[in-house]
Amino acid sequence: MEARYSIVFYFLMLLALSSAFAFPSKKQYKPCKHLVLYFHDIIYNGKNAGNATSAIVAAPDGANLTILAGQFHFGNIAVFDDPITLDNNLHSKPVGRAQGLYIYDTKNTFTSWLGFTFVLNSTDHQGTINFSGADPIMVKSRDISIVGGTGDFFMHRGIATIMTDAYEGEVYFRLRVDIKFYECWLYPLHQSFSKLIHNSSNALF
Amino acid sequence: MEARYSIVFYFLMLLALSSAFAFPSKKQYKPCKHLVLYFHDIIYNGKNAGNATSAIVAAPDGANLTILAGQFHFGNIAVFDDPITLDNNLHSKPVGRAQGLYIYDTKNTFTSWLGFTFVLNSTDHQGTINFSGADPIMVKSRDISIVGGTGDFFMHRGIATIMTDAYEGEVYFRLRVDIKFYECWLYPLHQSFSKLIHNSSNALF
Amino acid sequence: MEARYSIVFYFLMLLALSSAFAFPSKKQYKPCKHLVLYFHDIIYNGKNAGNATSAIVAAPDGANLTILAGQFHFGNIAVFDDPITLDNNLHSKPVGRAQGLYIYDTKNTFTSWLGFTFVLNSTDHQGTINFSGADPIMVKSRDISIVGGTGDFFMHRGIATIMTDAYEGEVYFRLRVDIKFYECWLYPLHQSFSKLIHNSSNALF
Repeated sequence: MEARYSIVFYFLMLLALSSAFAFPSKKQYKPCKHLVLYFHDIIYNGKNAGNATSAIVAAPDGANLTILAGQFHFGNIAVFDDPITLDNNLHSKPVGRAQGLYIYDTKNTFTSWLGFTFVLNSTDHQGTINFSGADPIMVKSRDISIVGGTGDFFMHRGIATIMTDAYEGEVYFRLRVDIKFYECWLYPLHQSFSKLIHNSSNALF
Repeated sequence: MEARYSIVFYFLMLLALSSAFAFPSKKQYKPCKHLVLYFHDIIYNGKNAGNATSAIVAAPDGANLTILAGQFHFGNIAVFDDPITLDNNLHSKPVGRAQGLYIYDTKNTFTSWLGFTFVLNSTDHQGTINFSGADPIMVKSRDISIVGGTGDFFMHRGIATIMTDAYEGEVYFRLRVDIKFYECWLYPLHQSFSKLIHNSSNALF
Repeated sequence: MEARYSIVFYFLMLLALSSAFAFPSKKQYKPCKHLVLYFHDIIYNGKNAGNATSAIVAAPDGANLTILAGQFHFGNIAVFDDPITLDNNLHSKPVGRAQGLYIYDTKNTFTSWLGFTFVLNSTDHQGTINFSGADPIMVKSRDISIVGGTGDFFMHRGIATIMTDAYEGEVYFRLRVDIKFYECWLYPLHQSFSKLIHNSSNALF
């Protein structure tokens, strides 16, 4: 009879472990951290030195550095230091800076490639988030990779969904960045189990 | 006697867990996902505007944008939008585009540094794969990092082994990219255990 | 009575599992791998072709490629192939090369953005480490992301803490890079549990 207890226990144990490892419940279907932020890019056109936040620094043969190149700007590289805001208002108090580069990389449509960092410095968030990926500008909603982070975003990874929120006369654009972290680590409990724990409040026990 | 059952059970449990966690079997020695793709780069040289897929957009002092610089092209940055094919034929139907930049970064041999994305759009694969790393061109087979992905490659990480499959007259080159994912996530079951599950079909139970 | 054995066993098992998964002890509070390295950058200024290790290859409108631009060098992109040493001596035997690019991306202070790779080739380390992140130069100690690695650093991730160890006349700088890996994978046992095992010598059993 006691053997039966063991058998019952075995199945309970099996159930507990398998529910934790093998069949995650649907209610866990969400990011471990979520942020929506905007950033604002004003490109230098030769006349707006005062408020430009980015500059063309490379261009294909025959193009110059104050007018985006023909052929869908193919070959332009821009360096930027753009304010990040919580809403879509350029004049809202910035919570950080978006810094890095974007390149226009296609001759027959607008696409760009992004390598940049959000440097956040507000009461809510202190730390950096590093992004990399292709940005097919004409697609309404497109995903890039979050490849790492520091500070509050220590070792985080995830996906950022980008939408063009405004585009004005090839001088100003505003991007809405929907940041979804799927791998969150606790800081400073920074060894490998931290991230499992963080993501699995209802797992195992 | 029943205590003995428990002891037997304990050792079985120990065995089951330890085989899953502590002594992974040799047969698991493989990527969780594997792709081999080719991409084709035709650099603009001032005469091939029609079929060029990349352009020199930055060069060191004294060099121009239609001829790769002396000193092993040190200091050149090229922006590219290259077709990706399943085989080594430039004229095969593309399954996507390789987009980003490469730089030549050494003065005494050919090495480059790569930051680019595979944008795949075929019946087999929908999604992006983001790459970053050093490419010592003269080495037959070299590894770069896969730092993230989206769509079918949601949150994936891995290693890409690159081989120069052809190099013709400093205008055309073709790279074979052997993509090995070692961290695979299920989409949309995107919480942290997903990746464990995906990679461990024969683990635990 | 034997049921009691099972209950005792259950609690022991619970304890064992929970100590491994849910309450990592403070003594695990450390990276799974740790390196401190230095790299040395000598930028080309038109006169030092012999020993320069980097070159300005892009600049904003109006600037040239042998003098870092005004406005805190905003808009300059430099490509580099810098020696890596174990100590702060430029003339020590290199253990590898730091290769990639840095950009100056702010108009009102010195900040840069980094995308580069350590290519290590010594008796101690064979492999590459890929870095990405914002570098607020005027801050004494700043963190960037380690987004991947190859060889000895197969699939590794972590944080690099950068300090400016020397800065001389806008021609030479030396960075101290404190590399802390928090996600280590065994090579070639490269399936997903490898990294758990590597990081948890005192966990589970």
